[in-house]
Amino acid sequence: FESKLPAVGTTIFAVMSALAAEHKAVNLGQGFPDFACDPALIEAVHQAMLAGHNQYPPMPGVPALRQAVADKIRAQHGRGYSPDSEITITAGATQGILTAILACVHPGDEVIVLDPCYDSYIPNIELAGGVPVRVPLTPGSFRPDLAAIAAAITPRTRLLIINTPHNPSATVWTAEEMRALEDLLAPTEVLLISDEVYEHMVFDGAEHQSAARFPGLAARAFINSSFGKTFHVTGWKVGSVAAPAALMAEFRKVHQFNVFTVNTPVQHGLASYLADPARYLELPAFYQGKRDLFRAGLENSRLKLLPCNGSFFQCVDFSAVSDLGDVEFSQWLVREIGVAGIPLSPFYGDGFDQRMVRFCFAKEDATLQLALERLRRL
Amino acid sequence: FESKLPAVGTTIFAVMSALAAEHKAVNLGQGFPDFACDPALIEAVHQAMLAGHNQYPPMPGVPALRQAVADKIRAQHGRGYSPDSEITITAGATQGILTAILACVHPGDEVIVLDPCYDSYIPNIELAGGVPVRVPLTPGSFRPDLAAIAAAITPRTRLLIINTPHNPSATVWTAEEMRALEDLLAPTEVLLISDEVYEHMVFDGAEHQSAARFPGLAARAFINSSFGKTFHVTGWKVGSVAAPAALMAEFRKVHQFNVFTVNTPVQHGLASYLADPARYLELPAFYQGKRDLFRAGLENSRLKLLPCNGSFFQCVDFSAVSDLGDVEFSQWLVREIGVAGIPLSPFYGDGFDQRMVRFCFAKEDATLQLALERLRRL
Ligand SMILES: CSCCC(=O)C(=O)O
Ligand SMILES: CSCCC(=O)C(=O)O
Repeated sequence: FESKLPAVGTTIFAVMSALAAEHKAVNLGQGFPDFACDPALIEAVHQAMLAGHNQYPPMPGVPALRQAVADKIRAQHGRGYSPDSEITITAGATQGILTAILACVHPGDEVIVLDPCYDSYIPNIELAGGVPVRVPLTPGSFRPDLAAIAAAITPRTRLLIINTPHNPSATVWTAEEMRALEDLLAPTEVLLISDEVYEHMVFDGAEHQSAARFPGLAARAFINSSFGKTFHVTGWKVGSVAAPAALMAEFRKVHQFNVFTVNTPVQHGLASYLADPARYLELPAFYQGKRDLFRAGLENSRLKLLPCNGSFFQCVDFSAVSDLGDVEFSQWLVREIGVAGIPLSPFYGDGFDQRMVRFCFAKEDATLQLALERLRRL
Repeated sequence: FESKLPAVGTTIFAVMSALAAEHKAVNLGQGFPDFACDPALIEAVHQAMLAGHNQYPPMPGVPALRQAVADKIRAQHGRGYSPDSEITITAGATQGILTAILACVHPGDEVIVLDPCYDSYIPNIELAGGVPVRVPLTPGSFRPDLAAIAAAITPRTRLLIINTPHNPSATVWTAEEMRALEDLLAPTEVLLISDEVYEHMVFDGAEHQSAARFPGLAARAFINSSFGKTFHVTGWKVGSVAAPAALMAEFRKVHQFNVFTVNTPVQHGLASYLADPARYLELPAFYQGKRDLFRAGLENSRLKLLPCNGSFFQCVDFSAVSDLGDVEFSQWLVREIGVAGIPLSPFYGDGFDQRMVRFCFAKEDATLQLALERLRRL
């Protein structure tokens, strides 16, 4: 039968992880930590299982975890969300984003994405029968181009997807940019998905500017968070979505017939773990240490460092080192240098090649040191 | 904005669970056990977390668990599936079913469901832009009506969804019925979703007739299983899908952009737990004991017992007791008698009311005794 997603192959993340394993390279490709999570978090989930929390939780999630998420958003961003009607626990941010798209995009609706973007957005839009409209981030700086977004909006535009801190470019939207987006969208009925999974990795004293802080954005937004990214357990597949009640009601209709609900003991464990805000307040400093170590190690190398204001990714321009395209260069880097990164071109609709590679620095310092030693040979 | 699923409200399962809690009724509604899972299973997941299995697993699932699923299917049904290309671990059977539908149903395609059916099927088809075609199971017996299925097939039919053992009716397809379906579909290109989540609850020495046993069905089928239903952990949200490689390739394209992958420590825990087939071989006898206890308790009551050949559900006809419709009767039963069941009409497209209620007997014997005491007052 005819494929629903004819253009989709294996994700670049899986391809590079497999190549890294084959060549025993240091894997700075796919975005996950190589260090352990807090043993207290494991113990909290273990205790939840022993306490018998092993059957279906309520469809939108365990009430204590929804309350903890609402408390956290209020503490971070000053906006109140109702745990009953405005917070839902998801099987990871990817599931939250597909679910939001299926809930609001009708066949033929246009959805604006900012290029480059995470690789699930476009197939998600296509599954809903929507029409992806790609607006480039400013070439070179990767900053949002508000005029270009404004120009792309038509009467058929249903939704805009933004992502801050941004994967792969490590840029972070400023308050001014968020406010400009708020003004731009004010006269429209365009909905917003704000992918904020790297919210706790923002550096140099800057603050994460959640859509929750801007009433004109929050009123139209599905805000996606990821406990996996935040607490070093990407394999647990649990996240949350916050949205105004009217949007959340539609989200839940799809959610209940997609996954129905999410692993109960993990939800209980996270609820008790989140009681101590230190658990996320210490994260920016922790990741800034890793970013600084990694950048210092490449300072005098022939790889040109791009700015890194957030996320756990560092992009480098390799054009002083090689004439290869980014996909070929990344493969060469695994085979000859023993370090795996992710080329940027697969994040673009048209495979636009900026001669850049993305490295993940969510790794043990020793792992980063080993990678740096190798990369300095370039 | 316009709802994608205007007809969808809160599921009857959530409605009845909430009403049961409010009235402190014995809850035999939503299908989940009230007894603990095997402590060895909890310990296996705990050990996986301690061993550091907390980051992304491969997209289709942990290899050891896919191998265990393939081994299990071969042992039960004699068909070999490749763990590499034909088995995927899902975030529960509901996610597996939506994902299969999104992967193969194009807008305008017809999908045949057998009425009554599980409540996610129809909204799943609608989200894919498909057209649900409801074919009634034989009224009274709930057996598949092969002639009616044949008559419903058109050149636009993409997919048929079957479910054995059947929720809500507790009927089990016979080998003859499966073979008749195989013959019926042979000249067509209709695909099949076979929802087999109650595969280990089949009684009186009968065998579960998986689509995997019938080559003409297996070649076109996505077969859905549920570890949650099988091992008394409905809240863990983990299942599996088996399908021929060409179908599975399309399934995985959607899966990777829906949940991407499924809780890693739970997958490792299940892989080690499944090493001992006794863990599932003992289940039919265990559940048959509960079925027999529950049926014996109602033998001389005014509720008429329907046959129960599989699943953990028992349907009763209440027409000797009350003139109410099944939804009203179920509510009355909670309030006045203190027992919650699930009315059957919400499983029908047109709300067809057979004056029946479904009770879940996956409960402690003491819970069943208490419910029986109350039901005998009728
Ligand atoms: C889903 S695997 C990819 C993880 C990730 O977010 C990334 O590496 O960009
Ligand atoms: C998803 S809640 C319902 C569980 C179930 O399968 C049932 O009760 O029929």
